[in-house]
Amino acid sequence: MAVYTDVSFEDLERFLAAYAIGSALSFKGIAEGVENSNYFLKTERGVFVLTLYEKRVRAGDLPFFLGLMEHLSARRIPCPLPVRGKDGALFGTLCGRPAAVLTFLNGVSLSEPEPAHCAAAGAALAAIHDAGRDFAQTRPNALGPASWSELAKRIGSRADEIEPGLARLIAQGLDGLSFPELPSGLIHADLFADNVLFAGGEISGVIDFYFACTDAFAYDLAVLLNAWCFDAEGNFDLARGKNLFAGYGTHRALTEAETAAMPMLARGAALRFLLTRLYDLLHHDMRALVRPKDPREFARRLRFHLGVRDASEYGL
Amino acid sequence: MAVYTDVSFEDLERFLAAYAIGSALSFKGIAEGVENSNYFLKTERGVFVLTLYEKRVRAGDLPFFLGLMEHLSARRIPCPLPVRGKDGALFGTLCGRPAAVLTFLNGVSLSEPEPAHCAAAGAALAAIHDAGRDFAQTRPNALGPASWSELAKRIGSRADEIEPGLARLIAQGLDGLSFPELPSGLIHADLFADNVLFAGGEISGVIDFYFACTDAFAYDLAVLLNAWCFDAEGNFDLARGKNLFAGYGTHRALTEAETAAMPMLARGAALRFLLTRLYDLLHHDMRALVRPKDPREFARRLRFHLGVRDASEYGL
Repeated sequence: MAVYTDVSFEDLERFLAAYAIGSALSFKGIAEGVENSNYFLKTERGVFVLTLYEKRVRAGDLPFFLGLMEHLSARRIPCPLPVRGKDGALFGTLCGRPAAVLTFLNGVSLSEPEPAHCAAAGAALAAIHDAGRDFAQTRPNALGPASWSELAKRIGSRADEIEPGLARLIAQGLDGLSFPELPSGLIHADLFADNVLFAGGEISGVIDFYFACTDAFAYDLAVLLNAWCFDAEGNFDLARGKNLFAGYGTHRALTEAETAAMPMLARGAALRFLLTRLYDLLHHDMRALVRPKDPREFARRLRFHLGVRDASEYGL
Repeated sequence: MAVYTDVSFEDLERFLAAYAIGSALSFKGIAEGVENSNYFLKTERGVFVLTLYEKRVRAGDLPFFLGLMEHLSARRIPCPLPVRGKDGALFGTLCGRPAAVLTFLNGVSLSEPEPAHCAAAGAALAAIHDAGRDFAQTRPNALGPASWSELAKRIGSRADEIEPGLARLIAQGLDGLSFPELPSGLIHADLFADNVLFAGGEISGVIDFYFACTDAFAYDLAVLLNAWCFDAEGNFDLARGKNLFAGYGTHRALTEAETAAMPMLARGAALRFLLTRLYDLLHHDMRALVRPKDPREFARRLRFHLGVRDASEYGL
């Protein structure tokens, strides 16, 4: 949650002149997203989110991210739709940063999802995988398996500053980790509960596509499993797992190879978030307007996955 | 701008059960106010701001602040209206903190007000002074003149860490500072441009009454002068000053004593914000999700006021 850049009304008016959405009736920074500055924007023509892309999102990736949201919106995925400027551009420049206007979606994210919500999340992920099949652009997964050893090396023994034993756990997690070749395509790669909006028990929005990339579908599902199927105490909830996979299965059937790889994929996904959260915490700028997330949640998940022998233990 | 407390959807639903505004359709933390956590809340019945009062606002003061907004709303001041719970309560408890639901106001705040905006702000302040006359509650100004010497003592020579010479400037500001007995009543005490919303050139909202108190009307006007009539470089803008006082005069005429005291009041108001900003900066918790404001803007204003001999130099 953050607003890194202060945008004055005067800056905003100049920026909005390039769009056909009228002038601003309301404009407030919102505490959403850790990578960008986001503003709630109400104009004469509707309600929007204005996003300024800060340094962690590369401008070169914006045609991919924004083009993807436009592609998915056209295929009835309820994601924010980028509003094109009068000249057709997907984004412009505001306060020296790339900036885009996207439609605002109703709905609230849940902190304690029930099994039925997990089924809905699983179905939504499969629908995204399906709708992304004919998306023409690709983007490698910058935080994929190939990056983990290097990240672990950069963290090194400092992991133990956060919790004694973490450096050893990371080594265990990396040891023998390898993924088979699996069906790949467009994945969200970060579908945590705070990126899914619900209204009246149904999903009304899927947001934050700024980690989206081209990678294995089943890896995306393993991220979802880590994000949705552990309770507040960090224990795996089998009912949520069963619902998650059943929901996914309503839109896309997993191959045998994907099912067999699930314990390895889940272990890899836990490692990914453990490593990036550790790195962010150890390199946290105290001046940043963001609280770093706790890596230890994922240490606990990783320990769980290291003990799993078979996908049936996840409810698959 | 801040969200200090994370409110889950489940916490929110429990809290909203005490209100007759339906359930949440959208709920997002907004970057507004430095003292409290604020959320944008859309329900089946309308659009609201949900505020959690953090430690700097005392629960004992809430009947004053919220009662005042209700009083002013009833007198056509466009301020947030607290929504009472089903039991008639002005506030409840959420995540262990006092919390209130207030109506959301359209409009945007300006960073570079034009003279016409200053006239509107002056008129709005006078309208508040007028509408507050029959408000039954009173509250002493905790950050009024009586507190400044003590605050200066606590800052001491550390002021010079921020800018060499500040400790001496503060001593000059305090030297011989005294206010005559002036017409008093309900004042806003913090009517900076970010607390005034404009829509189509007119004021659509006045917000953040959490410094409101009982004190001299002309002191409130001196705060407004400091907040609105200096340009981005810190130079006094006579056209803005003239408009500000003319706007105020359309609703309430200043007495001779008030006019004569204006240089002293303006110097006091600059000192108030210099001291509190210095104190906040020197005691800033780096973990806080708020950027401290720059005290030096008010050092520059204070130097200006120390050279003013007559209210006519302000355009009065």
